[in-house]
Parts: sequence; structure tokens; C-alpha cells
Amino acid sequence: MSGSIYGKNFTISTWGESHGEGYGVVVDGCPAGLPIDESQIQAYLKRRKPGQTKFSTPRKEDDKVRILSGVFEGKTTGTPISLIVFNENQRSSDYSEIASYYRPGHADYTYDMKYGFRDYRGGGRSSGRETISRVAAGAIAAAILRELGISVYAYTKSIGPITIDYKNCRKEYSLTNPLSMPDPEASKKAEEYIQEKQEENDSVGGVIECIVTGMPPGIGEPVFDKLDAALAKAVMSIGAVKGVEIGDGFLAATHTGSENNDPFAYDENKKLIKLTNHAGGILGGISDGSEIILRAAIKPTASIGRPQTTANKFNENIEVQIIGRHDPIIVPRAVVVVESMVAITLVDYLFQGMTSKMDNIKKIYNKN
Amino acid sequence: MSGSIYGKNFTISTWGESHGEGYGVVVDGCPAGLPIDESQIQAYLKRRKPGQTKFSTPRKEDDKVRILSGVFEGKTTGTPISLIVFNENQRSSDYSEIASYYRPGHADYTYDMKYGFRDYRGGGRSSGRETISRVAAGAIAAAILRELGISVYAYTKSIGPITIDYKNCRKEYSLTNPLSMPDPEASKKAEEYIQEKQEENDSVGGVIECIVTGMPPGIGEPVFDKLDAALAKAVMSIGAVKGVEIGDGFLAATHTGSENNDPFAYDENKKLIKLTNHAGGILGGISDGSEIILRAAIKPTASIGRPQTTANKFNENIEVQIIGRHDPIIVPRAVVVVESMVAITLVDYLFQGMTSKMDNIKKIYNKN
Amino acid sequence: MSGSIYGKNFTISTWGESHGEGYGVVVDGCPAGLPIDESQIQAYLKRRKPGQTKFSTPRKEDDKVRILSGVFEGKTTGTPISLIVFNENQRSSDYSEIASYYRPGHADYTYDMKYGFRDYRGGGRSSGRETISRVAAGAIAAAILRELGISVYAYTKSIGPITIDYKNCRKEYSLTNPLSMPDPEASKKAEEYIQEKQEENDSVGGVIECIVTGMPPGIGEPVFDKLDAALAKAVMSIGAVKGVEIGDGFLAATHTGSENNDPFAYDENKKLIKLTNHAGGILGGISDGSEIILRAAIKPTASIGRPQTTANKFNENIEVQIIGRHDPIIVPRAVVVVESMVAITLVDYLFQGMTSKMDNIKKIYNKN
Amino acid sequence: MSGSIYGKNFTISTWGESHGEGYGVVVDGCPAGLPIDESQIQAYLKRRKPGQTKFSTPRKEDDKVRILSGVFEGKTTGTPISLIVFNENQRSSDYSEIASYYRPGHADYTYDMKYGFRDYRGGGRSSGRETISRVAAGAIAAAILRELGISVYAYTKSIGPITIDYKNCRKEYSLTNPLSMPDPEASKKAEEYIQEKQEENDSVGGVIECIVTGMPPGIGEPVFDKLDAALAKAVMSIGAVKGVEIGDGFLAATHTGSENNDPFAYDENKKLIKLTNHAGGILGGISDGSEIILRAAIKPTASIGRPQTTANKFNENIEVQIIGRHDPIIVPRAVVVVESMVAITLVDYLFQGMTSKMDNIKKIYNKN
Repeated sequence: MSGSIYGKNFTISTWGESHGEGYGVVVDGCPAGLPIDESQIQAYLKRRKPGQTKFSTPRKEDDKVRILSGVFEGKTTGTPISLIVFNENQRSSDYSEIASYYRPGHADYTYDMKYGFRDYRGGGRSSGRETISRVAAGAIAAAILRELGISVYAYTKSIGPITIDYKNCRKEYSLTNPLSMPDPEASKKAEEYIQEKQEENDSVGGVIECIVTGMPPGIGEPVFDKLDAALAKAVMSIGAVKGVEIGDGFLAATHTGSENNDPFAYDENKKLIKLTNHAGGILGGISDGSEIILRAAIKPTASIGRPQTTANKFNENIEVQIIGRHDPIIVPRAVVVVESMVAITLVDYLFQGMTSKMDNIKKIYNKN
Repeated sequence: MSGSIYGKNFTISTWGESHGEGYGVVVDGCPAGLPIDESQIQAYLKRRKPGQTKFSTPRKEDDKVRILSGVFEGKTTGTPISLIVFNENQRSSDYSEIASYYRPGHADYTYDMKYGFRDYRGGGRSSGRETISRVAAGAIAAAILRELGISVYAYTKSIGPITIDYKNCRKEYSLTNPLSMPDPEASKKAEEYIQEKQEENDSVGGVIECIVTGMPPGIGEPVFDKLDAALAKAVMSIGAVKGVEIGDGFLAATHTGSENNDPFAYDENKKLIKLTNHAGGILGGISDGSEIILRAAIKPTASIGRPQTTANKFNENIEVQIIGRHDPIIVPRAVVVVESMVAITLVDYLFQGMTSKMDNIKKIYNKN
Repeated sequence: MSGSIYGKNFTISTWGESHGEGYGVVVDGCPAGLPIDESQIQAYLKRRKPGQTKFSTPRKEDDKVRILSGVFEGKTTGTPISLIVFNENQRSSDYSEIASYYRPGHADYTYDMKYGFRDYRGGGRSSGRETISRVAAGAIAAAILRELGISVYAYTKSIGPITIDYKNCRKEYSLTNPLSMPDPEASKKAEEYIQEKQEENDSVGGVIECIVTGMPPGIGEPVFDKLDAALAKAVMSIGAVKGVEIGDGFLAATHTGSENNDPFAYDENKKLIKLTNHAGGILGGISDGSEIILRAAIKPTASIGRPQTTANKFNENIEVQIIGRHDPIIVPRAVVVVESMVAITLVDYLFQGMTSKMDNIKKIYNKN
Repeated sequence: MSGSIYGKNFTISTWGESHGEGYGVVVDGCPAGLPIDESQIQAYLKRRKPGQTKFSTPRKEDDKVRILSGVFEGKTTGTPISLIVFNENQRSSDYSEIASYYRPGHADYTYDMKYGFRDYRGGGRSSGRETISRVAAGAIAAAILRELGISVYAYTKSIGPITIDYKNCRKEYSLTNPLSMPDPEASKKAEEYIQEKQEENDSVGGVIECIVTGMPPGIGEPVFDKLDAALAKAVMSIGAVKGVEIGDGFLAATHTGSENNDPFAYDENKKLIKLTNHAGGILGGISDGSEIILRAAIKPTASIGRPQTTANKFNENIEVQIIGRHDPIIVPRAVVVVESMVAITLVDYLFQGMTSKMDNIKKIYNKN
């Protein structure tokens, strides 16, 4: 049951359907004294907004966020922060037909099996618009991380066969590039690739990479709640993600120990560093102080214009053609969703990590 | 904090260090009336036992399990099941030297950062022996699944460059093949590959694939607690796992929608099936009734015999050579650990799924 | 941290402050297929509404509830139900003065200690209006219980020195009696008592009793999650509650075993019953099939008109007089809050109890 | 399901039955660096040990505790601490008869209803011996509190009609007085009262009071996770507890606001105090820095020697006489159990409270 609540000490509780009244999130466990306002959250939501480029659905969605509680005189009070985005411009008539059949690659069938019936309008709860709640909460998590000198940066690493490398990223393009692919040349090729597939009424997938800098060492829990395990769940819970890897990931499986081990060393300032980072910043489930590196595989958009065969509720095999306004690629708009889920998870783990040492507890409670 | 407890309605709580008194697990939430005995659990533990082949450490560990509570007259009582395996044959002297430096690829440094100090003997809590607790609990989860007609099967899919395919697997070899690689020819090549690297004082990695059959559709929770997200966390929480993918996984990122979508259809018996299974048995985070397919990337063993550079606690960069009894590959012994974590997660989700429909609740509680 | 989320399998997440935008609750884990509409929830909210009698604050609060998600075509979908009540008629100016001092009996000081600062307007999150969220969720829980033949009934058992007995209750007065005290004679005396104290600018307390009928035996968890323990927490979490007891409660401490034990017996229909119910329907933390009986002690309203001494933030001891619109008694409006918390807790426990027996699990999942 | 795990950030997971192999607890979330050894835990267990006075069962139970994990070189490592007490001297033959009928006041019937069958030997999981696990964990919690200057003290406040007052307590008698009633005169009367009832083959109940001193203000969570709500659950989860109250408790329900409100004031040292403490140290669910005062009503022992009527499993009403070794009163041995549950809860809440303010988080993580 449930399943729409995430986090232990920094907890978000989300709600909403694509053709209901709107989307929202309640953030419980945000510490008091964090400066926050609607514009910060709006800036985050803008990054996942549709209708901004030729590769995203032309639906106009303003996605205007309102803070309903938990903020007083510009600062968080420590009590739950309720954020709401009312739906606009939803045309339910578009979806009346799909009520009777199961779209390939969608959750229509599985929701029916689980719940017995479903809100079929635009995917209901399984719509990609559900990520509005995640991103709104992600903006708050990012604000907390900023206070601690931690930054989370995600970008489109690959689209179909076109791949870029982090060390060649030109981050100044991150927010303006329509594909969130901060390499103008590769991005241009990717645009052509998408356009080609779009003309074939098809869609494409890709890979998002996320880099965390400034992470203190020692964050993460042993055994089941390893930091990488938590990040894997966080990112895999995003609708279209089919795989997650940390550091060298699947490549590590083909390497030898001598290739994969990262030597520790003191640098010229006698600071302990790792000379390489195949591990992706996490050892034994605990951050090691180097960059956390994570990649997520995003499947191609399931809604495609070309005819497909499928089954309906009346025991018939049919051919369907999905008409509507759909992105030919999910990747660029999912970049900020990955950032959000990573940020929320890191905050939760930083909070949990505060009680790892008796010394820390004394630091907070011993007055003398 | 914590981090050694897993599951919501079927909960396991583990403890133990490689050179402490032993390992154990408390299983809370196992339903009453399940037949279980120590031999079933022992059979599972046997599969992760070292010293069975030339590719696993020659340490002799009997790993004899005892049931201390929760079972009465051969059946579970519904109250916590405590399982314990006492350590034997641990030679602490082997490890005294490593107390002062950070082994590359190990959790020595991160545990020190998190806790301020650590039990350095054999990795303490970060030792691979920690999986004893997981496997003991996994045996109970598997017994529950068996009652529901669900089976979980994992195998070594690849070792270094040698890869096998599920449809060519000869499952009859699964338990006897020293590499858990049920393809005699490939297994032989893999043995040669390992031996070669072992002679170079190096280690190798690989990929484990896990297939769940008999899974009912409709299991999984929307949004954060998607079944694939939970499985990703479960499997990524195993020490050496660096990546997890479902169905086509990272390959899906390079496919188009028309390639990746699985058409629904009624078969000749009017049963609804999927004609392909790129999704790996999960749509929108909920099982679709087809096989669940999951792969985990396992890094090469971090403990290797060849000299490595690293840092010690005295601000020095040093060269070290790790002497000891270490597997040149983790993969074969991790197969049953993957199975266990998948089984435990499925049980937890089957339990959670019981309240998805008002009809189910009435089925249990309405007497008339 | 957090603290505004309640329940494990039936989870409610609440938010709101008395002078913020409004109050709300997200109900996660409600099964699909439950008929629900706004009028059912409104009927519950009406019972805690102020301004209905001379003994409640003359503030006009419409407390109009809206369902924002989770309901489709009149039935729950199984996904989160978001309920919202926008605030109206809040006059912040009333409260500007109290920002600087700590009202006796209120949470001003403790919120300041915990969070460093607080939303001082009308108590912020600590306002009694917070219970709007609980009651809205309680209406949904009560609807689920109704489907299972379980009813939760609470009433004002005592006000100051005036006490009534359950077996003399005339339930037909429950909803219309201004004190929720379904004994017209006692209620009249209580009104006089309240009026007397109100004229002295003082306030009064009382006791609420809650009776659950139709509860199936076997619900509750052993050890920490005993049903009575959960109910105690649920009810003690209501702002003004200072004590909770089950069955004979504190009286049982003065009895002997032979007085307190309830004999089991088969009645004429060979149904197993208890001949007495000192235990209050719960044995060993698990429901025994008889009525669950619970009482809550409610303290007198902390906001009183007479002058009081207290401290301010400037290190001064001062005399204050709290002006404003305050109920002279909390008890009658808290009756539906107690019912709500009990109902929510019972639903959560009924859901948890579904997996106690392997037989139940097979009943849901075994198709043959 | 489950139900044997307690706590969020400081989590204990317990197991064991009275006639199984033993009892144990896994403490997960204990910070690293706490000095602890078996003797500290043994000292706590000694306080609940039977066979020490004429008023407790003459069973000899050594209850020798062993630390199996989580402690290295005399200090906690931050990983799970597994504690075990093996059962000795359990005579199963004593209990064979009770398998077929339901003892009044016991959980036999409700366990059967919940689980379908039960370990009937000595109450199985519902035995009072289950508290061994709680007390072992309580010793660790108390050690943490001690480091923070917080102490938890409980005592027998009343036995049947004999009541003592905290301000007359002579604490020096606490550990030696056979009834944990630190008032030699009252204790003597209570002994006579118990003896009288015991000769009538009957049993008696009483009240335990618990006082927490040194508690910092600001601990507790708003709304559902109020500190008093958590304490109520913690204490009500102890087998024989039928009621819990905080501060004036049920008496507060009969008081007026002017009597019940505690004025704040600065003392001569300009320290903010409360002039009275009717609230019992908690306001709005958050500690106010004064003593936390809690009382628990303990029912009389259910096992009594005199003949009782009850029902068996064969649809018969029968008369039974419970033979065996039973305490005529639970109260004295439950004192340390109350202390333990309060201590465990306080530690969990102190840990949760560390993230209430952004300032605290910076204090731990900002290096500059």
C-alpha cells in the first residue's frame, strides 16, 4: 500500500493525477530557518515544463507553484511545507478512447490489475506529470544542500547513439540547451536524430548522468541502507528509468581488481584523496568525499504515433494509434527530476548521518 | 543511523561482524503456519559458503545455522524468527596490520569517516560475510514464495568477457557448477580466465541475472515504491554491486519506442500476455505477470595480491600488499545473495499489495 | 524531525497552520474501490466546527473541504487522496502581541526551543485547528470500517465533576447535544458548570470515552505495536490529552486478579464471548472481539481571560491577559477527533493484520 | 505484521519466547564511541530478575547476557548490537495442559485468533519474560542519556490502596527495596497487603511513576509524534499496562485552566523555568525543560491460583485452576521495564530532534 511517501527523516508525501485538480507535495522534516520562497521552486519547475522546445509536447502548462504552509516571514518553520500546482489546460476528451485498451509500454494494464480500475485520463497517477511533486520538493532539498556546500548537477549524457563526456561538458549551456546536453555540437546531432525518429512517428531514449560535488565523506548507512542503494531506488522510481549505475557501473564488471581499485593518497596539502574514482564516490555504501557519479538509463517515450497492436478489455487483439501531444524523448525534461531525487536522498542521508558518532550528539546537546 | 533493517511488512534485522561472535538475522512479519526447518536454511547458506571450489577462499566456514525463536512444532508462529550462525575459524591476527591503512576498494576509510573508528578485523561489518544474514532470511522468503507458486532463479551471466544467455542455460548445472554459470562450455572458459587473472594476483568481476517466474500481475506501488525501484535498492545494497538494470536496461536507452514497447495480446487460451518482454516484467512500477528480469553488475574483488599504493592514518602514502585468503571473484557466491534480496523484497511487496483493493480486505474480514 | 505523518500501511500526512493558507491531509494507502464524496467528509468536519454553540468560539469557520486527488467517478483509485480546507476569517492582528511572550499552557516556548523561532499567529502548527486534517482523514477511515461492520463511537463522558455512564447514554442526542454528552440531564448540569467557570474567565476539562463495536478478534501486533499501545499514542497525540486508559484503566491498578480477569465462555449460540470486559477488548495487545473501550483525559483550555503571570523573550516576568475568541472547554469538539484517530489506527491495524496467517495470503494470491 | 521492532533512528528489534532458546534484541542506530560492557546490561537485567524476593516467582533465572556484535575494544562501533540471553530452567511440562483452554486475562485466545495457533508454553511470545529484550536495550539507552546528563528514574508509586509520593521518596532504597517502593513504611504495608491477597490465591496491581530529569527543552515532534504520545505508546506496550498519564493526567480533566496552567518565570539566575509542573514537562508534545512525569497503571497478575471459569477449544465452559510459579504482583519487576522504554524513546527523540534547526545541521557538517 501507499508508495507515494519517500524519505525517513526528510520525508515527502506526494499526490495528484494528470487530469485531476493538480499536483502537490508535503515536505515533512525540513529544518527551521531555511530561507525559501516560491520563485526558487518555480525555477526548478520551469526546467521540467513542457512546451519549451520543439521536442516537448506543445501543451501549455504554467505549473505555477504555491507554498501553502511551513514558511513564515521567508523562512521555513520546521513544520510541514505544503506545495501545490493546480492543473490547467487538461483536455480529458483526448483520453476517453484509451479507457478501454492497454497501451503498450504504459501502466494501464498493471494499474487495472492492482486496483481493479483506474483513472484513465492521461495516465492518471502514472503520468509523467507526477514528477512535478518531486521537483518542487527537490528545490527545497537543493536549497538545504547549498547551505552545506553540496551541489547536484545532472545532464543528458546520451541520446540514442550520441554520447558526450562529462569532462567536455560546457555547463554554461546546461539551462539553455533544449536537450540539457551541454555540448553544442553533440546536441545538434542529437536534435537531428530525434527529428528523424519523430518523423517516423517513433521516439528515442538516452542516459542521464548526475554528479554530486562537495559531499562530505562518511555519509551512508551500512548494509541495506547504503547510499548507493538509496540513490538507485530514488532514481529507478522515476517513471521511465530502466537501469542505474554508480561510478564505472556495468563496465566495472568487465574490469579486474587492479583496474577498478582507486588508490588513496595524500595530496600536496596533506588532504586524503582518491587518485581515481571508478567507485563513483561511494565505498561500502558510504560517501568517500570524492564526486558521486550516477547514471540512469531512460527508455524511449512509450506513446508513439505509429500504429501498434495491443489488447483491449473485451478480450480482443486490436490495432491502435495513439494520437496526442507527446514528447519524442523524455530525457531532457527528466534531468531535473534526477537531480531532485538525488538531492532529496542526500538530505535524508545527511540527516540520518548526524547520529553516527556519540561526539556529534554531544556537540548538539551538551551545553557546557 | 541504523541501516541494518530491511523491509516494511516483512522485516529483517541483521547483525554481525566477520571477526565477532557470529552473524544473525531477526525476521519479523513472517506469517504463522509456514513449515520451516533449519535444513532449508542450511541449504541456502551452503550456496554462499566459501571453500567449496578453487575459486573461493580456502577458509573453512561451517556456517551452521540455528533457529532460536518463532518456530514451534515445525511451523512459524507469526512472531520474530531469530537465526544465528556463530563464527568459527576466524584468525584475527591476519588483520592486525591493516588497522593502520586504508585498503583501496574497501570501506576502511569511509567507516572511519562515518564512525570515527572501526572494527578493522576482516572488514568488520563491511565484510562479505554479512550476507550470511541475508541468505538465511532469503531462505524463509523463498519458502513463502514457493507456497504462492513464485520462483526466483539467479545465475552468473558473465565473468569478465565471457557471457551466457538465459535461453541457453542448463539449469540442471546451477547448483553444481563451481561458477553458478549453467553453461558448461562457457563456464570452462570463465575458469581459465579467472585462473589467468589469479596468477597475475588480480581479480575479476561479472554480471548476475535474476529471473522471477510465476509473479502475479498487480504487485508494486506507484511513484516512489515502484517494484523495480525496490529491487534496485535491494540488489544495490549487496556489497560489490555497482549497477542494476531491469529488462533491457541500459540497452533500452539506445532503442526507439517502437522497438522497446511490448505489445499486449490474448493468447489462444484468451489469457492476456505480452508478446515481448523488453520491460522485464514491470510496467509503471507494478508487475505485469510476465517474467521479472534483473541484472546486477558485480565489481572485481577489491582484495588483490599484487602491490598497491594507498594512504595510511599517519599522513603517509605507502605501498601495500594484501596477504590473505580472498576469492578472485565474488560473482558465484553472490548469486544466492541476489536471489535472497529479490525474494525478500517480493514477499514484502506481496504483503503490501494485499490491501490495494477494498475487495481483498472484505475477503479477509467479512465473515458473511 | 517530521512528526506530521501517521500510520504504516494506511498513512496520513498533514499540514497547515491556523493563520496560513489552510489545512490539508494526504491519505496514502486507501484501497481502491471505496465510495467516497466530499459530503461524507464535510459531515465529519461539521462536528468539530467552532461557532455552533455558546461554548465554542464565535469565529465563523466554514471549513469547506475539497478532494483534490485519488477519487475518480465516485470511488477511491488506490492512489493518494489529497484533502484541503482553505482558511478563512483569520485575523492575524489579534495575535501580534503574543509573539513576544510565552503563554502558560501553550506550546509557544517549546516551539521556540525546538525550532529557534515560530509562526506565532494563533499558535501556528500547534493550534487546535490542526485537527481539521485528522478529522478529514478520519471520515475516510470510518467509511472503510463501515464496510467491515465496525463502528467507532465517542462521547463526552465527563466535564469537570459531572460524569455520565455509557450504559445510560442516549445516543440519539449525540450529534445534536452541544456538549456531545448524550444524557440531557447531565448535559444541562455541565452547561451550568461551564457557564459558571466562563464567567470567572476560567476554563474546564473533561473525559472522552470511545467505544468500538464490531471489531474482529485477532487484530493487533505483539510486543511494541500492541493495539492498545497504538491507540494510546493516537489519542495522546491530540493536543490537550493528558492521559489515556483502556478498559478499567487506572482502576485496574487497585483491583485484584480475581476482580480484573474476564472469564471466557460460550454463549447459547456456542459463540465464544467474555462474560465481563475489564480488559476493554484487548488482551496481549490484540483485539478479543468484545468492545474496545478507551478513555482520554482532556485538560482545560489553556487560553483563559483572567490575568496570568508569565515570562517574555526579553528576560522579564510579566502579567498578561489573553484576549480573543476561545472555547471555555475543548472536550465536545474533540470527540470527533478521538473517533478519527481511533478509526485511522484501526484501519492501519486491520491492514497490517491481513498477513498474520499464511492462509490469508494464499486466499488473496492463490488463484486455484 | 511485525510489531517487535521499535524506534525510528534508534531502533530495537526483539525476539524470543519463554520456552524457546532464549531472548534477544538487536539495537540498530546506536552511535559509535559509547563505552559499554556486559556488566552494565547485566545490572539492568538484575532489576527485573525473578526469584529475588518472596513476592516474585521462585524460578531461578540467571538471565546472563552476552554481547554478540557491535562493540569493539569496549566501545560501540555504530553497527548493530546484538544481545542474547539464553533460557534456562524452563519446564515445559508445566504448561502442557493450558494448550487446550484460554486463561482469563491472558493472550491465549487472541494469539489463536490472530495466528491460527500458538506456542502455548508459558505464554510463548506474550510472556512477561519478553521484557528481557527491552531491559537489555534500555541499559544501552540509559548509557547514552547519561552522557547527555539525562536520568530516568521509576518507582512503585502505589500497590493496591497504598500510595506514596515522589517528594517523600527515599531513593537510596530504590534498588534494595523488594517492591521498588522507596518508602520503608509504605513498603511494609504494601508487603502485608500483597501477602493477604496471595493467601487468598489472588493478585494485586499498582501504579509506577517515572521521572526524567535533565531533559533539554525542545525535544518532541509536533502533531502525531508528540513526545508524550510516543511515551504513552512505549509504556502502554508493556504487557500489563492499562493506562498512561502525563503530569496531572486524569486529574487535569477535573481542573480549571487557571489551576492547570503552569506560569513561566525567570528565576534569580535569569533562567526560564515553570513555577509549577502540572503539564509534566511536555507542552504541545515538546519537552519544556522541566521534569517529565509519567504514570502507568499496572493490572494485577492474570495468573492466579484460585479456581476460575473459562472456555476451552472444544466448545466447553470449564473450571480451571492455574498451578505454577507466578508473581502475586507485576509492579516491582516492571519498574525497570518502564525506565527502559522511556529511555529508549527519549534517545530516539533526541536523535530525531538533531535536525530541527538548520543551525544544528551546519554545526555538524560545516567545517569552516
